Amino acid sequence: MDHSESVTGILRYPHIASKWGAYPDGAEALASTHVLDHGIVALLSTYHSDQMIAETARVSYGKGTKQVKTEAGLIRYLMRHRHTSPFEHAEVTFYLRIPIFVARQLIRHRTANVNEYSARYSELSDDFYVPSPDYLHEQSTTNKQGRGSLLSSEAALNAQVEFVNAQQNGLQTYHRLLDQRISREVARVVTSVGTYTELYWKCDLHNFLHFLKLRMDPHAQQEIRDVATAMYLCATSFFPQTFAAWDDYVRRAYTLSAPELTALRDLLRQHVPSAASYPANTYGMSDREYADFKRLLDTLLS
Amino acid sequence: MDHSESVTGILRYPHIASKWGAYPDGAEALASTHVLDHGIVALLSTYHSDQMIAETARVSYGKGTKQVKTEAGLIRYLMRHRHTSPFEHAEVTFYLRIPIFVARQLIRHRTANVNEYSARYSELSDDFYVPSPDYLHEQSTTNKQGRGSLLSSEAALNAQVEFVNAQQNGLQTYHRLLDQRISREVARVVTSVGTYTELYWKCDLHNFLHFLKLRMDPHAQQEIRDVATAMYLCATSFFPQTFAAWDDYVRRAYTLSAPELTALRDLLRQHVPSAASYPANTYGMSDREYADFKRLLDTLLS
Amino acid sequence: MDHSESVTGILRYPHIASKWGAYPDGAEALASTHVLDHGIVALLSTYHSDQMIAETARVSYGKGTKQVKTEAGLIRYLMRHRHTSPFEHAEVTFYLRIPIFVARQLIRHRTANVNEYSARYSELSDDFYVPSPDYLHEQSTTNKQGRGSLLSSEAALNAQVEFVNAQQNGLQTYHRLLDQRISREVARVVTSVGTYTELYWKCDLHNFLHFLKLRMDPHAQQEIRDVATAMYLCATSFFPQTFAAWDDYVRRAYTLSAPELTALRDLLRQHVPSAASYPANTYGMSDREYADFKRLLDTLLS
Amino acid sequence: MDHSESVTGILRYPHIASKWGAYPDGAEALASTHVLDHGIVALLSTYHSDQMIAETARVSYGKGTKQVKTEAGLIRYLMRHRHTSPFEHAEVTFYLRIPIFVARQLIRHRTANVNEYSARYSELSDDFYVPSPDYLHEQSTTNKQGRGSLLSSEAALNAQVEFVNAQQNGLQTYHRLLDQRISREVARVVTSVGTYTELYWKCDLHNFLHFLKLRMDPHAQQEIRDVATAMYLCATSFFPQTFAAWDDYVRRAYTLSAPELTALRDLLRQHVPSAASYPANTYGMSDREYADFKRLLDTLLS
Repeated sequence: MDHSESVTGILRYPHIASKWGAYPDGAEALASTHVLDHGIVALLSTYHSDQMIAETARVSYGKGTKQVKTEAGLIRYLMRHRHTSPFEHAEVTFYLRIPIFVARQLIRHRTANVNEYSARYSELSDDFYVPSPDYLHEQSTTNKQGRGSLLSSEAALNAQVEFVNAQQNGLQTYHRLLDQRISREVARVVTSVGTYTELYWKCDLHNFLHFLKLRMDPHAQQEIRDVATAMYLCATSFFPQTFAAWDDYVRRAYTLSAPELTALRDLLRQHVPSAASYPANTYGMSDREYADFKRLLDTLLS
Repeated sequence: MDHSESVTGILRYPHIASKWGAYPDGAEALASTHVLDHGIVALLSTYHSDQMIAETARVSYGKGTKQVKTEAGLIRYLMRHRHTSPFEHAEVTFYLRIPIFVARQLIRHRTANVNEYSARYSELSDDFYVPSPDYLHEQSTTNKQGRGSLLSSEAALNAQVEFVNAQQNGLQTYHRLLDQRISREVARVVTSVGTYTELYWKCDLHNFLHFLKLRMDPHAQQEIRDVATAMYLCATSFFPQTFAAWDDYVRRAYTLSAPELTALRDLLRQHVPSAASYPANTYGMSDREYADFKRLLDTLLS
Repeated sequence: MDHSESVTGILRYPHIASKWGAYPDGAEALASTHVLDHGIVALLSTYHSDQMIAETARVSYGKGTKQVKTEAGLIRYLMRHRHTSPFEHAEVTFYLRIPIFVARQLIRHRTANVNEYSARYSELSDDFYVPSPDYLHEQSTTNKQGRGSLLSSEAALNAQVEFVNAQQNGLQTYHRLLDQRISREVARVVTSVGTYTELYWKCDLHNFLHFLKLRMDPHAQQEIRDVATAMYLCATSFFPQTFAAWDDYVRRAYTLSAPELTALRDLLRQHVPSAASYPANTYGMSDREYADFKRLLDTLLS
Repeated sequence: MDHSESVTGILRYPHIASKWGAYPDGAEALASTHVLDHGIVALLSTYHSDQMIAETARVSYGKGTKQVKTEAGLIRYLMRHRHTSPFEHAEVTFYLRIPIFVARQLIRHRTANVNEYSARYSELSDDFYVPSPDYLHEQSTTNKQGRGSLLSSEAALNAQVEFVNAQQNGLQTYHRLLDQRISREVARVVTSVGTYTELYWKCDLHNFLHFLKLRMDPHAQQEIRDVATAMYLCATSFFPQTFAAWDDYVRRAYTLSAPELTALRDLLRQHVPSAASYPANTYGMSDREYADFKRLLDTLLS
C-alpha cells in the first residue's frame, strides 16, 4: 500500500494544536494534515495566485496577449513551453514537523527559504519515527535504492520493537547527558536521524512544483513522498489552474528520449502495432531503459 | 543636488494610470512614486511582515526566545548578528518602469524574480530618458566611474538637445523598420539603452536590503540610486522594525578593517586625540583608503 | 538559412586577437569562433571533466556503482534520471563579445557568474550589430515573437543602411557628449542596444546545458541561438560523454503531455495507424498544441 | 582549548588512504588534514587563481585599471569595496568526511554544489563522533547556544562512555535490521546524527569566504569551526592575495553600528579617552551589544 494515496481526510483551516512545539498557540493554517506517525504538514500562507501569475506573464507579452488568452489558457501555455519565470512570482509557506532524515532530503532543494528548530538553543523533541508495518520491506534485490516485498507481520512487529528500543535508548542517553549539564549542542550527537524536527519552509511556486516532481516520484523514498504528497494536497486548491496544467504537462507527462522516439517510429510504421510485434532493442538503450519503455507501450497498447 | 533626497511627495495607494503600459487598468498599488523623467516605482504587494520574521526566528530558537525578546528586540538581534534567514521569509513585489541601462544594473541582483516587457512580442515604448540639468556633470578626473562638476546651464541645454535628437532618431528608424514590416525582435536593435522598459520585480526582504545597500550607496550611479531610494521609501513602512534595525546596523554602519582598527588604536592611545595629531599612514592602507578613514575620523572628532 | 548551422570552421586554440578589448594580449583560448558581425565566443577554461562527474556520482551511490557501470553508462543513467547534481561539479568559462540585446537575454540565466565591461569606467566600443540580409525577415503574422518570410535583397539593403545610420548617429552623439566632457555613465544613454559589449561568463555544466536547451531552441531569437550554438560547439569535446547523453535525453527528446499520451494511445490502438486516420482533437489541446503534436506524428509515420 | 588552533600539521599532497570510503584509491589531494576523531578534510582541486580574479575584474573596469593597479592592489580594492563578482570566478572542491550533524550545518550554505553518500544505496559507515574531553563543556548559563566550563576529567570520561554506548547500540540495531534484510533506507533511521558521512563539496570563492566568515566565528559550534578552519588552512595558499585581503577587510574587521559610531564619537571628543571615562549606554544598545562594544574599546585602549 502506498501511503501517499491515503492522505484522504485533509483537515482544512484547523487550529494547529499548541503542543506542536514552536508554532504559535492557536495559530491558524490554511490547510494541514498529519503525516507519518508524529508529523504534521501545515500550509501557513500563500503569496499571489493564478491571477497574478497570468498578470506577470502579460507584462512580458504586452498587449497582444490580452485579447487572445484566457487566464487558464495562458497558464497552460506557460507550463507547456516551460516559461517558468511567472510561476516564481507566487510563494507557499509551510510549517513542517518531520523526521531529521526526511528534512535532510528536503533541504537539498536549495531555492527554498528555511528556518529550522535548533538543537543548540533548545531541547530536542522526544518524538521519533517508527515505520508502520506496511512501510517495512525487504531491501530490493534489483534496485539498490528500493524496497522489495513486505515483511511478515511477526517480523514487522519485531522490527518495530528494534526501532523503538534503539531510539528510546538514544533519547535516554541524551537526557542523562543533559542532566549532567552537558551543553545541548554536544549532547544531541547521540540522538537518531529518526528524531522529529520542525521547520518553516518557503518556496516559490516554480521551484515548489519542481520539488514535487522529484519527491512525489516513485523513485523517491516513501517517507518524503508522503510529506510531498501532503504538501501537494494542501496547496493545490490555492492555485487550481497552475496545478491542473502541471498535472497535464509535467506530472503525468512522459519524456521520450531520442532512442525511444526512433523505436516508436519503427513500431508505428508496422502495419499492426502490438506488444507482440515490438522490435528488439537495437537502439542503444540500457536494459532497464528498454524495460521502462516497453512498460509505457504496454499501457498505451493494452 | 542629490535627487535621491527629493523623492518627497510619495503617492500612497494611488491607482496607477492606465497609460503605464501593461499594468492592468485601475490597478491599485500599496505605494508608488515617479522617478526620473518617465519612470514609475510601484510597490504592488508584500508577503509577511515584521511579525512573521520574528515568528520564523523563534522556530529556530525554540521556547527560550519567547520570554526574553520583544519583537523589536529580536529583529535588532537578528540584524546585528547577520542572522539573515528569517528576513528571507518576507517578500516585496514592485512594478517598475525604468530605462534599459538602469534595468541592466537591477538585473545583476540574481536572487530576484523578474518578468520584463518583451520587445520581441510587442512594440517598444516611445519614452526615453533625458537627464535633467542637475544630472549633467563632467566626468570626474579623480574617480573613473564618478561625476565631477555640473555643466553650465547653457552646456546642459545643448547636451539635452543631443540626448533628445539621438534617441528620437533611433526611434524614428525603429518605426520606419516596423513600417517595412521587419520583425520587431530585429528592428529594436537601433533603439537606445535610454529607452524605458517595464518589469515586475519580486525579491525576498534579505536580498532586497542587500540590493538597497549596494544601490543607495554614493558609489552607485545616480539614476539607479533614485530608483532604489524610491523602492526603499515605498517599502519601509510595511516592515518598520526591520528597516529601523537595518538603518542602525547596515546602512549607517561603518566597517573598520584590520589596518583601520590598528590606526584607531594608535589614535585612542594618544593623550588628546585630534585630527592634527593623527598618525601617518604606516598601516599599509592605499591612499584612497587612508583618505576615507580620515574622513570618518573628521566626522567623529569635529 | 539557419546560421546556427553555419558555424563550421571552429578555430581551436587560437590566440585571441588583442583588439578584442579587455581580453589580455595574446591570451590563449581552448576554442573560439566568430559569431554575428563583430562577435566572438571563446572558451577560456573548463573545470573537471566527464571523469569527475562520474566520480562525484559515485560518492552518492557508494561502492555498489563501481562494479556495474562504465563511466559512459553512469553518465547516461544520471542524465536520463535527471540526477543533476554531479553535473554541477564541472564548470565552463567563456569570454563573449556580443551585442547588448543578446547579453540581456543571456543574463537572465541567473546561476552564471558574470563580469561585464562597464560603460561607467571605460568608453564603449564603436562596434554595433547590423543584421545580414538572411537575418532580415518580416514579422511573422502567426507567431507574435517570430520571423516570417525574408525581405527582398533590395529591401534588405535599404534596411541595413537604416541599421548603420541610426547606430552610427547614436555613437557620434556619444562621442560629442564625451568631447564636452560629460560623464561616461550618462553619455552612454544614447547608444543603441545593438552596441557590442564584452563579458566573462562562468557556469556549471548542469546550468550551462539548461541554458543551451532554452537558447538553442527554435523559439529563441536567432542571434542568441548563434551565440549558444557557438558555445555548444566550443564546449562539446571537453565533456564528450555528457554532451552525447544530453543529445539523446534532452536536446533531441520530446515530452509527451498527458493529452498527447492519450491521443497516442488512441492512434496505436487503431489497426493501421496513419496520418490519414489520425483522430480529431478531443483531448483538450489548444490548436497550436495539436498542430505541434501532429507534426511529431508526421515525422514518425513518414 | 580551541581545537581550531591545533590543526598544525597539515598534510600536503598526500595520497588519501583508500579506506576513506568512496574516494578513489590512491587519489591525490592538493592538501588534506584530519579533523575531529574520524574526519577528513581534503582539498581535491581549485579552479582559477588570484590572477584570474584580477583579470575578470579588469574586463569590467576596462583599460583604465591596467596601468594603475597591481594584482594585489586590485584584489584589496575589490575586497574592500565588496565587489564580489570577480571572486565568484574561482572555485574550490573538497572531499569531506564529517558527522551528520556537522554536514547538516554545512548544507545550509545553499550556493555550494554537493554530492553526499547515500544511505539508501549503500551501508552507512561504522564510525561515529565521540567528543574528546576538552570538547565536553557544561551548557552555558548566559548563552543559550554556548558552552560553559569544562567537565571534570572523571565526568568527561563517563560522558564519553555514554556517547560510545548509545551510538554503538544504534549501529548494532542497524546491522540487526539489515541482517533481517530490511531495506537500507528504512534501517538507517535508528543511527545517530553523530554518524560519519562523506561528501564532495564545491563552492565558488566568494561564497566559500562567506561560509568561512560564518563558520570560523566564535559563535559557531566548535565542531564545524574545526572543519571550516581546516578547509581554510587547506585553501589559503592557493589564493594568497585573496585570503590576505579577506583577513584584513573581513575576518579581522569590525563593523561599527550607528549607535556605536555615536558612542565612539563621544569618547573621542573627551580630552583623555580611557576605559574609566567611558560614557554610559545612552545609545539604545542592548546590554549584550554594549558589553561587546566595551570589549572592543578595551582592546583598543589597553
